[in-house]
Amino acid sequence: MARPRRTRRKKAAGVSKRGLPPGVPVYTGEARDTPVSVHMLDYTGDALTEASDPTLERLAACVRPDTVTWIDLDGVHQVDRIQEVAATFTLHPLWVEDLLNPSSRPKAEWLDDRLFVLIRVLSPKGEDFEVEQIALVMGPGFVLSFQERPGDVWEPVRTRIRERLGRIRDRGADYLLHALMDVVVDGYLAVLQGIETRVDTLEDSALQPRAASDLLEQVTALKSDLAVVRSAVWPLREAVSALVAGEGSLVEARTVPYFRDIADHLAMLVDGVDSGRERLLTIVDLHLAQTSHQLNEVMRVLTVVSTVFIPLSFIVGLYGMNFDHMPELHYNWGYPAVLGLMAVVAGSMLAFFRRNGWF
Amino acid sequence: MARPRRTRRKKAAGVSKRGLPPGVPVYTGEARDTPVSVHMLDYTGDALTEASDPTLERLAACVRPDTVTWIDLDGVHQVDRIQEVAATFTLHPLWVEDLLNPSSRPKAEWLDDRLFVLIRVLSPKGEDFEVEQIALVMGPGFVLSFQERPGDVWEPVRTRIRERLGRIRDRGADYLLHALMDVVVDGYLAVLQGIETRVDTLEDSALQPRAASDLLEQVTALKSDLAVVRSAVWPLREAVSALVAGEGSLVEARTVPYFRDIADHLAMLVDGVDSGRERLLTIVDLHLAQTSHQLNEVMRVLTVVSTVFIPLSFIVGLYGMNFDHMPELHYNWGYPAVLGLMAVVAGSMLAFFRRNGWF
Amino acid sequence: MARPRRTRRKKAAGVSKRGLPPGVPVYTGEARDTPVSVHMLDYTGDALTEASDPTLERLAACVRPDTVTWIDLDGVHQVDRIQEVAATFTLHPLWVEDLLNPSSRPKAEWLDDRLFVLIRVLSPKGEDFEVEQIALVMGPGFVLSFQERPGDVWEPVRTRIRERLGRIRDRGADYLLHALMDVVVDGYLAVLQGIETRVDTLEDSALQPRAASDLLEQVTALKSDLAVVRSAVWPLREAVSALVAGEGSLVEARTVPYFRDIADHLAMLVDGVDSGRERLLTIVDLHLAQTSHQLNEVMRVLTVVSTVFIPLSFIVGLYGMNFDHMPELHYNWGYPAVLGLMAVVAGSMLAFFRRNGWF
Amino acid sequence: MARPRRTRRKKAAGVSKRGLPPGVPVYTGEARDTPVSVHMLDYTGDALTEASDPTLERLAACVRPDTVTWIDLDGVHQVDRIQEVAATFTLHPLWVEDLLNPSSRPKAEWLDDRLFVLIRVLSPKGEDFEVEQIALVMGPGFVLSFQERPGDVWEPVRTRIRERLGRIRDRGADYLLHALMDVVVDGYLAVLQGIETRVDTLEDSALQPRAASDLLEQVTALKSDLAVVRSAVWPLREAVSALVAGEGSLVEARTVPYFRDIADHLAMLVDGVDSGRERLLTIVDLHLAQTSHQLNEVMRVLTVVSTVFIPLSFIVGLYGMNFDHMPELHYNWGYPAVLGLMAVVAGSMLAFFRRNGWF
Amino acid sequence: MARPRRTRRKKAAGVSKRGLPPGVPVYTGEARDTPVSVHMLDYTGDALTEASDPTLERLAACVRPDTVTWIDLDGVHQVDRIQEVAATFTLHPLWVEDLLNPSSRPKAEWLDDRLFVLIRVLSPKGEDFEVEQIALVMGPGFVLSFQERPGDVWEPVRTRIRERLGRIRDRGADYLLHALMDVVVDGYLAVLQGIETRVDTLEDSALQPRAASDLLEQVTALKSDLAVVRSAVWPLREAVSALVAGEGSLVEARTVPYFRDIADHLAMLVDGVDSGRERLLTIVDLHLAQTSHQLNEVMRVLTVVSTVFIPLSFIVGLYGMNFDHMPELHYNWGYPAVLGLMAVVAGSMLAFFRRNGWF
Repeated sequence: MARPRRTRRKKAAGVSKRGLPPGVPVYTGEARDTPVSVHMLDYTGDALTEASDPTLERLAACVRPDTVTWIDLDGVHQVDRIQEVAATFTLHPLWVEDLLNPSSRPKAEWLDDRLFVLIRVLSPKGEDFEVEQIALVMGPGFVLSFQERPGDVWEPVRTRIRERLGRIRDRGADYLLHALMDVVVDGYLAVLQGIETRVDTLEDSALQPRAASDLLEQVTALKSDLAVVRSAVWPLREAVSALVAGEGSLVEARTVPYFRDIADHLAMLVDGVDSGRERLLTIVDLHLAQTSHQLNEVMRVLTVVSTVFIPLSFIVGLYGMNFDHMPELHYNWGYPAVLGLMAVVAGSMLAFFRRNGWF
Repeated sequence: MARPRRTRRKKAAGVSKRGLPPGVPVYTGEARDTPVSVHMLDYTGDALTEASDPTLERLAACVRPDTVTWIDLDGVHQVDRIQEVAATFTLHPLWVEDLLNPSSRPKAEWLDDRLFVLIRVLSPKGEDFEVEQIALVMGPGFVLSFQERPGDVWEPVRTRIRERLGRIRDRGADYLLHALMDVVVDGYLAVLQGIETRVDTLEDSALQPRAASDLLEQVTALKSDLAVVRSAVWPLREAVSALVAGEGSLVEARTVPYFRDIADHLAMLVDGVDSGRERLLTIVDLHLAQTSHQLNEVMRVLTVVSTVFIPLSFIVGLYGMNFDHMPELHYNWGYPAVLGLMAVVAGSMLAFFRRNGWF
Repeated sequence: MARPRRTRRKKAAGVSKRGLPPGVPVYTGEARDTPVSVHMLDYTGDALTEASDPTLERLAACVRPDTVTWIDLDGVHQVDRIQEVAATFTLHPLWVEDLLNPSSRPKAEWLDDRLFVLIRVLSPKGEDFEVEQIALVMGPGFVLSFQERPGDVWEPVRTRIRERLGRIRDRGADYLLHALMDVVVDGYLAVLQGIETRVDTLEDSALQPRAASDLLEQVTALKSDLAVVRSAVWPLREAVSALVAGEGSLVEARTVPYFRDIADHLAMLVDGVDSGRERLLTIVDLHLAQTSHQLNEVMRVLTVVSTVFIPLSFIVGLYGMNFDHMPELHYNWGYPAVLGLMAVVAGSMLAFFRRNGWF
Repeated sequence: MARPRRTRRKKAAGVSKRGLPPGVPVYTGEARDTPVSVHMLDYTGDALTEASDPTLERLAACVRPDTVTWIDLDGVHQVDRIQEVAATFTLHPLWVEDLLNPSSRPKAEWLDDRLFVLIRVLSPKGEDFEVEQIALVMGPGFVLSFQERPGDVWEPVRTRIRERLGRIRDRGADYLLHALMDVVVDGYLAVLQGIETRVDTLEDSALQPRAASDLLEQVTALKSDLAVVRSAVWPLREAVSALVAGEGSLVEARTVPYFRDIADHLAMLVDGVDSGRERLLTIVDLHLAQTSHQLNEVMRVLTVVSTVFIPLSFIVGLYGMNFDHMPELHYNWGYPAVLGLMAVVAGSMLAFFRRNGWF
Repeated sequence: MARPRRTRRKKAAGVSKRGLPPGVPVYTGEARDTPVSVHMLDYTGDALTEASDPTLERLAACVRPDTVTWIDLDGVHQVDRIQEVAATFTLHPLWVEDLLNPSSRPKAEWLDDRLFVLIRVLSPKGEDFEVEQIALVMGPGFVLSFQERPGDVWEPVRTRIRERLGRIRDRGADYLLHALMDVVVDGYLAVLQGIETRVDTLEDSALQPRAASDLLEQVTALKSDLAVVRSAVWPLREAVSALVAGEGSLVEARTVPYFRDIADHLAMLVDGVDSGRERLLTIVDLHLAQTSHQLNEVMRVLTVVSTVFIPLSFIVGLYGMNFDHMPELHYNWGYPAVLGLMAVVAGSMLAFFRRNGWF
């Protein structure tokens, strides 16, 4: 389940920030030992330069309007280092605060010629998935990406840049931004499909005569997973819609259709989350109906057996009484007559039940 | 049920696209052996030309503003072929990607003088229906239609063109586009009516004393069918509303009322889907109430029989005890007195139950 | 119930239209033998002319901007006749199609100087009501009304025109249109009140100890009736709001307040339908609670009787055993001692139950 | 309960109006014997004139832009009288119709320099409250108020005018209108608080082991009361928002904040009604859970007692059989051995139940 | 629980105001003995002056556009004192009324160069929290804060001003306003986290075989706590959105991003409250399912035991009858044969139950 971890993070974030001035950068995520690693890719249609952990000066030098520079920071736990980078690229202090706090709300904001996108990465991990926050900053000729944890979520994009696949090398920083977001949103689709598969399984098992005993726990877990997806997708959808509508006008007109494509995927995700929630509700209803159906069945068996035998037991008890004067006991035909009487009683009871369709 | 197939398709689509650059055309539907077949209809009010599998050159030649050319591609599984056509008619790469992915979201988009409509075809098939995605592209003087599977959904339109029925031969490409969409939307109505008939049947059976044992499974299946219809209608409605509002302005003013007619039908469909969902909820409620009513009835029988006979059984057991000194046993009137006592007990019990209206 | 009929109509409409070109007039309602009858009223403040089944030429002649002409067609099953009239008054082919299809969606549309209103008439009929579709077309100096079935829904309006009641004779065609719609909307109020009375009755009976056994069927029927009212009112409300907002500008400024009055009534109807639905939900809840309360009561009686007598039965069974060596059986005080023991057991059981408030 | 009366009124109103021309004034409320009484207050900052039942001429004379005249009509059942007043102050016929119909929808409308406000007064009356409709008309220098029933709801305002409290004497007619509406809205708050107190009581009692048997009836009554408040507040809120937004521009800028204050109170009322409804839903849930908890408890007692004693009863029955050859019966240790066996059976049963936590 | 106190306050407020002119200042909160204490902080980037309970003259003197003056009033129960301050700083009478009434709705309003913010402070207190209303007034160069109860909620802000932490000393009054609101909103997050922790605990316990008996009470309490948070956050969100949108234009452009940061936090809070409510609903569902599951289990045990032994008891009763002529009783193999018969009956019963999966 993704829930516990998420809860833990939020708590950490909220408690430690209380009363601090806003805009003061404090890292509120998990502590890490490894240093923040920086990877730089600087490319035009013709040239490509890569560098690991370059100096800030070199970074600053690479950023020119005629090349696209992608600076990927792996880890945001060293506040000093992040601050230096933020100062070099003149990020707003509130953005720095947001990217350091791993439970910020996804959003897209812009100020002057800087576009800031906060996005959650959901990486499938077995049946479950991990949540990570990533910040992207676009400026003229560069994209900064801040990853919370080391990972290879963007390796496919690097490959496309290195091997000149697609049109990424021929476009500007806005297309790179789109490519990075697109990979993340494709990840949502994969996670949603994993959840849908689990819902399918659950739906089939809910229609079985005896559902798994932990069915409701699984429903709760899936609901909570869908809520995580929703909390990642919902705010992002608004943000991307704003970009598509041309607000901030930092995205070139020819790149807008690509962002609209992301917006379409997010709309599909919202549809998928909603339909998943509804199917889970249906499963709970099915389960309750199944449970109450079983109870009915059990009660019907009890009732048929009880009501057939209780009168018979009374009759045999009757002739087990020890009164001195019970004439029936002394007739020769007494015993067979009582057996016959009981057969009639039991038979009419059963006939009554069958007529009512009880068995 | 349409559900399984749908789920399968989505999975296939999502998994294989992950990490690929957007705009790279990959076919993610079911594999097919047959080649893509192309059918061309070129007409004016006076003349009509038909051709099967024409060359691209011939296609390009036919497209002139003074004739309407309808090019119908049957199958989208040969990516090369689709690419050639797309290049000839200058479609945006994202549109090609969308039409190759059979689980895209229905939409209408435009760019320059091209209008792209993605629409789902629901074809009734027995009690169930099939889902197919169709892409329509309109440009000056031509309409391109991409069908996923071979089928005769548009045979009536072809007949109308060939036999000059209606006003289709006197109008432009936008009217042809409308005619094609109208057939698809009429198909939705037929599917919805099929579902409503099944809901009617279910509603009647839910009011029967003993509902079908698979009633809840049927409700789940119908809910899921309604969800398929909804997911086809809902996004299309927004798209058609945008066309009616004159966005993109590729539709002539005199054709707009016809698109508004489609929008009306879509609104009716949305109403129908919503009312169908509500009726299904009511059916589940009825069924639950019926179940709990039956349980009450069963319990009442059990309780009446048990509570009448349990005290009687106690009494007969009492006089079955083997104590040496039980004076009642030796009186001549002992046995009739006990029988009388039991009659009184049973009678007052029954009177109590009748007064409470238990039988 | 109004439901069956409605469902039947929709089916008929949908099936027969599939694949036909839109705008081709086909009557899809019930077949009728009687011819379409036409009634004309032509009036100014001073003069009044009436005519039954006038020729088309006479109709066309009467329509002048300085008189108001109301042409009422009774029956839409003769397509030829309707076509002729439509041609005379230049109605859009889609409007003709809509008015011939008795399950179109209520709406108001305008084109040039023609205003087309499609409205559903609900006529109370005993506890139930009938649904009929009526089309109204307003042009300069005339109103056309197309009724599906013969009926006297507008007799009061005719009386007001003939006897110069109110201000109808002093106003134009837009005021006549308003008067016709107002009668229909007043009919909705009457139907809603009938439904509310039935909900009141049901609410009272749901609080009775033993609710009517068909309570849930009645709730379902009422829900379905409310849905019919809603489906008539909801789209009309949008349509009338558009008229009030001055769209189309075919309604004179001094008549707008009267249409706003209709909009107010429609808003009240929507409120009423919503509150009716909520009350029905409450009734179902009440009924379920009542049912489960009764079950509790039944079970409590069973439990009290069973748990009191089952131990007693065990005790009397114990001393009914035939062991040779059961010393208690031979004591003189054995029988009274067992009776006393049983009294104590039964007494403490009852005390326990009373303390728990079970009876 | 306020419900019955409300229902009755609606019915009366709807039935009698059907087919009548709109704008024809018909009183549809309860019949009354007393004549309509009129009370006039004419004031400036310095002067104050009061008059009871003045002539229409005197009323007309008092209305001047430099004084504020408040004309309060007590009763609207004499249509002639109301008509005269309406003619004197040139009210729109539809407004007259609305104020005569005691079940109109609350609203604010304006035409030229007349502002018409229809508002419902809820007067607390014991645990319950009464509903009355009041119409207010504001024009230059005057406010007309039409009360359905005699009452002293506005006595505090009269006192404030007479004793120069607050700033009411220094402001215009719009401030007087605000003062009158403010008293009514304060009345809503008092009614809502009464309802909330009853919900509090109910909430406490729902958590008791044995809830009041009429809990669901009380919930239904409270729901219906909240619906009455809501139906008074909801449309008024829209109306006041329109006034605050400056539509109609009959309210001076310096009085707008006071209307915004009313809008705030209405927003609080809507919040309160919504939260009250939610709390009632919670109460029903609590009650159902409580009921099903009790059933569980009852069943557990029955099951424990039954399953312990049923096998024991079988054993004692076994040795009550009369076979000639039952060797156990003749052993000396037979009776104690059976007692011991039964102790073991009962003990292990009880141990099983305790382990499962059944008691 | 926070509920009781809240209810009490509302009642006090509503009752005492009824019929009073609006804008008349009456304190409707709890009575207090201590006098209102005033604390003043006057600062620029370089200088800082503090004063306790300064005279009004001194206050008025300090307020200049070139310094920021923060005047904090501790207690609003002395109406005279508050009136004096309000007069000095020319507050609108309605604002004074709002800040004196401790159950006003949170809001932001502006008039000329005054901005008025009403906000609720939620202070965590053990597992629960306290509700307090605070009013903030911003004008050129000053911020007035009115606290209902003494408390140190803003001590961190004072420290930041005194020790020149962050950029608060370098900015204007709008930044100070933001800092004060930010502390309050951070408090909401802490309260929400406390609630989420309790929901986590409850969720875990709901999945236990035997849930805490007061689970539903706890759910009710948590729902009510979430409702308190929601009623504090929801109206504030609208208010802050209006500030961010630049309405009133009293906030400098460079401070707007900080208010947008608050808006983001409020959006997160709304999300959190909604997801908390949904999780509580899930918990109730889980609990109901658990309860009905237990009932099923209990009934199954009862049914298995009863239906196995009831026929056996009948058989032993049969041979306990005292008829003279029961030949089976006298055979040597009679007893073992009956024992065998009973073993077969019991065995087939158990086999039937096992096949049905009942144990």
